[in-house]
Parts: sequence; structure tokens; C-alpha cells
Amino acid sequence: MIHASVRIGENVIIGENVVIEENVVIGNRVTIGHNVIIKKDSMIGNDVNIGELTVLGKPTSSNKKMARKPLHSLDPLVIGNHVNIGCNSVIYRHVKLEEGVFVGDLTSIREKVVVGEDSIVGRNAIVETNTNIGKRVTIQTGCYITADMLIEDDVFIGPCCSSSNDKYMGMGNYKHQGPTIKKGAKIGNNATLLPAVTIGENAIVGAGSVITKDVPANKTVVGNPGRIIK
Amino acid sequence: MIHASVRIGENVIIGENVVIEENVVIGNRVTIGHNVIIKKDSMIGNDVNIGELTVLGKPTSSNKKMARKPLHSLDPLVIGNHVNIGCNSVIYRHVKLEEGVFVGDLTSIREKVVVGEDSIVGRNAIVETNTNIGKRVTIQTGCYITADMLIEDDVFIGPCCSSSNDKYMGMGNYKHQGPTIKKGAKIGNNATLLPAVTIGENAIVGAGSVITKDVPANKTVVGNPGRIIK
Amino acid sequence: MIHASVRIGENVIIGENVVIEENVVIGNRVTIGHNVIIKKDSMIGNDVNIGELTVLGKPTSSNKKMARKPLHSLDPLVIGNHVNIGCNSVIYRHVKLEEGVFVGDLTSIREKVVVGEDSIVGRNAIVETNTNIGKRVTIQTGCYITADMLIEDDVFIGPCCSSSNDKYMGMGNYKHQGPTIKKGAKIGNNATLLPAVTIGENAIVGAGSVITKDVPANKTVVGNPGRIIK
Repeated sequence: MIHASVRIGENVIIGENVVIEENVVIGNRVTIGHNVIIKKDSMIGNDVNIGELTVLGKPTSSNKKMARKPLHSLDPLVIGNHVNIGCNSVIYRHVKLEEGVFVGDLTSIREKVVVGEDSIVGRNAIVETNTNIGKRVTIQTGCYITADMLIEDDVFIGPCCSSSNDKYMGMGNYKHQGPTIKKGAKIGNNATLLPAVTIGENAIVGAGSVITKDVPANKTVVGNPGRIIK
Repeated sequence: MIHASVRIGENVIIGENVVIEENVVIGNRVTIGHNVIIKKDSMIGNDVNIGELTVLGKPTSSNKKMARKPLHSLDPLVIGNHVNIGCNSVIYRHVKLEEGVFVGDLTSIREKVVVGEDSIVGRNAIVETNTNIGKRVTIQTGCYITADMLIEDDVFIGPCCSSSNDKYMGMGNYKHQGPTIKKGAKIGNNATLLPAVTIGENAIVGAGSVITKDVPANKTVVGNPGRIIK
Repeated sequence: MIHASVRIGENVIIGENVVIEENVVIGNRVTIGHNVIIKKDSMIGNDVNIGELTVLGKPTSSNKKMARKPLHSLDPLVIGNHVNIGCNSVIYRHVKLEEGVFVGDLTSIREKVVVGEDSIVGRNAIVETNTNIGKRVTIQTGCYITADMLIEDDVFIGPCCSSSNDKYMGMGNYKHQGPTIKKGAKIGNNATLLPAVTIGENAIVGAGSVITKDVPANKTVVGNPGRIIK
């Protein structure tokens, strides 16, 4: 079902059982896999590839217990040129994927997130709301990128890393703050980052480390809790 | 395809390419996203929202090597009023989601599980069979809730926490037992809970900790292995 | 939509909204869930069960920044007899699932992977490219199996374990090498394995451990970094 208001460019391939809702705009040479759902108002550039069974432009929702209520006026999802999105993924409204971004299968990206040029969001990675991801960043498979986080350009985050933004763990209405990862820093697989820590420029966090305080630029930290080595 | 035996309430919105199998009952003011599959016998309350590409009421399956064989007579899936379920999720038969529960995208909940009123099962969280989750519990994104586990009311489990229930790791037919998390306890992100440990009332487990033995009520434990602090 | 070139055996059950592309071959007594997509050339044996909303035979893709470019001529996906595949999963071309394999919901298996007879790839587990998994292996829920990894027969990997293959974390064109896990070894939940480590025959890795160097056969290692006990 393609809504009558949808605008579609040249040489677009659309799979079976695809649903495209009202006011969607699709560029040229786009490939849309079978059973894809594109929610209303989404804007898709040229040379974009969308894998099967993926949802684009999902609005937010919540229940009584959630601190963060849905926003009533979210911008549309915007997907730049040459973006590649995997299968069975869920990308919300008010996300911007810049040119050349790669999003794997089984990922989810919440509202109010920008992913910079040529960055990778790996398979099964989850990105929460209100987070900014720079250019040429690698977020590997299975990472959890919390809300209210800043990831600068050229950062590398290994598989299965976890971050958090709520130091009081749901106890009240404190301000939430995720980690900041400065330019060029590298995080080993399955590392744990606590709320509000800063990982300095070109710092290295070892695999499996638990980072409870700031890591200075150019230093290497390993262990639980993380300690500077050398 | 909606089977002729399905009973549907008033003001129900059903998306494109939806499949609803025999004997399903759907309440009033329910919204069902595109490409949703509702397997036979499922019972859905009023004011429920079901995201796109989700499967509800899946029966169990297994292979030769699996310890736990599928149950031949499972109860239907029961979804209470005001429940919100995300996209690309898989919820089995013989699950009960009580009133106001929120289930994120890309989650899965196995058979013989109850999720209590107003609790949250975050995106990409996986809940195994035979586990009981209390009221107002938060299970954050990416958590793994093992089988045979008990989570009491008002527990908070941070992102990416992992639990297990098989201390002999597949070596034999020992009884499996997951952790017990008592009322009001809080678990930091990416913590690891070993089989059969008990986390006491209002206890706190630090992020990245590995919990190898019981944690007393009101104590805080951090590190690998976890040790009581203060 | 079933392409005219598809060959289908006897007593095959095909759900609603299923797409089967050209040259697919399907054996006898196969059940295909609703909204399943089977990409071209896939070969499916007898007595296979495929859950809803799953994609089989996906080709590879990449962006500018990715070290590993898609292969231009991948073999088809081959699924043996008595294989069981869950819902919302994504299995690539050039994968071989041998007889009796069980693949859970929300999993993904990349190209150039063999999964041996009667092995289990749990729900939400992700397997990267160029990895070999032996017979009767259990990979539990939420595991991350990196690329270029070798898992021998009868290995048990607990929930949420993480592995990696790139010791320079994206810094250059070094050879990538994942861990080797020898016959009968057991890995506890949420353990972290660094690139190129070898876990010896029948060795045991404790839950939450971080394995930075080889583990000898029959030894038990726990902690961060992992140390031999007893």
C-alpha cells in the first residue's frame, strides 16, 4: 500500500508487501526490501538501500512509569544519500542519518539522534534518544548507546559495549547524563561506561573494563574498576 | 487475513498485511501495526497498542539438544488493558502482560512468564521461560532475564544486565535456578548475576559487577567478584 | 509472491504474505511462517520449520568505512533437514545450517558460516562472518560470536558472552583473528574474550570473566583479568 501523496524518484525498486504512508518522499535509485514499512513524513535521499522487514519513522510511545514522555511534535526521519539500512530494524521519527551511514540488521535508533557521515551502527546495536554521533564513528554489533550521550568523530566502540545515563537508577527526577566519548577514542568489547564519564581524545578503554570516572586523553585504562596503565 | 472466528471490539485500527489467526479476541480501541501476526487463541484487552512486524502468541519449539522440551498444552497469551508493545518483537503463548505494561522493540518474552502492572521490558530485552516479574519493575534495554527467575515489585535493572540459571553449564539434568531479586533492589548496567543468587530488598549492585553470592538487603556491592562497600 | 522457478516438495505449509524469490528449492514437510522472505537460490531441506518475519539468504552489503567488502559471488544459503529457525531472524547467503540445528528468534548469522549438527544458536545471538561452529554446540541467548572464530564440538557458551577479533580496534589493515574455543570448553555468562585467545579443551571460563590470554585445557579461569583457580 503506497499512499497517493507519496513522491517517488526514478529507478526505485519496491519489494512486496511494502507500506508507505502519507507525505513520504523518496529519492532516485532507492531499493526498498519486502515487507518494509515507511511511516508518514519520512524523507529518503538518493541511492539508499533499505533491508527487508524494517520500520522507518516510528513515532514514540511510553507508559505511566517512564520518566521521558513522548514528544508531541517530532520532526520527520531524514535519511541522506548512499545510506544502507539492514533488515528487521526500527528507526524512529526525528532521526537524521547523514550521507554514507550504514545501519545493520536488528538495530534500533530512537528519536532526536544524529548519525554523522560514513558512520556505522552495527547489527543489534541500540541507540537511545537525544544522542549525537559524529562522523566516521564505528559502533560495533550489539552495543548499547544510552540517551543523552555525545560521541565525537572517529570514535571506535567495540562489540557489546554498554553505557548508562541515570546514576540514581530510576530513584527520581534527577538530570540524566550519558558518557562523552571524545574524538578518536577506542573502547574495547563489552566495556561498561557509567553515567556522565568522559573518555578523552584518543584514549583507549580495554575490553571488559568498567569505567567509573573520567579517562584522560591519550591514556589507556583497563580493569574493574578501570585503572590507567603504563 | 483475519480468521472468521476472530472477535474484534469497537474502534480497532488494523494495519496492512496483518494476520490474525483463529479464536483471537481483541478489545476496544486497539491499534495493530502493519504486518503484525497474532497467533491463535491470543486475548487482547482494551486500549492496547501493538507495533509493526511483531508476533504475538508464538508456540514453543526445540531441537534434540535442548534440555527443556516444548509444552504440549500452553495457555493462550493474555494482554491486559493499556499495554503498549513495540515493533519487531516476539511474545509467546502462555505469557500474561498485566495492565499498563510497556514492551519495547526487538524484545522477546518466552512462555510461562507474568509481567506485573505498569512494568517495563525495554527494547532488545529477552525474557526466558518460567520467570515472574512484579509490578512497577523496570527492565532496561538489552537485559537478559534468564529462566526460573523471580523479580519482585519495584526492582530496577539497568541496561544490558545478564543472568543465568545453569551452574553446570549444560553438563547434566540438574535443576536450573535463576536469581531472585527482592523488592526495590537496583542493578547497574552490564552487571552479571550467577545462578540462584538472591539480591536482597533495596540492595544496590554496581554497574559491571559480577555477583557470585547472595547480596544482603540494603547493601551495595561492586566489583568482580562483587564485594560489599561502606 | 512465489517466483515461478521455485521448487516446492510435498506437504509444505506456507503462511500469508510470504515472498520466495527465484531458484529457491524447498524440501518436504516444511512449514514457513507468515511474512517470511526467502531470497533467491536458497536451498531448504526436509522437515524444516521457519518462524514468522524471518529473512533467509540475505546478500551482504557495506559502506565506505568498512574493512571487509561484500563478496561478489557468495554461495547460496543451505539449510539441512530438521532445522528449526525462529521469528524475526536474518540469515545471510553462504551459510550452512547442518541437520538438526536450532536458531532462535531475533538472531542473525552472516555469510561464510557453518553451524554443525544439532547445535543451538540462541535467541538474539549474532554470528559474524567467516566463523565455524562445530556439532552439539550451545550458543546461548544474546551471545556475540565475532568473525574469524573457531568453535569446536560440544562447546557451551553462556548467555551474553562477547568476543572480538580486532586487537587494534579499527586502526589499520592488520589481520583479524577471533578466539578459538576447543572441544568441550564452557564459557560462563557475560564473559569477554579478547582477539585470538584460545580456550583449551574442557576448560571453564567463569561468568563475567575477561580473558586476555590463552586458557590451558581442563583449567578454570575467573576474574578480570582472568586468572586460573585451584
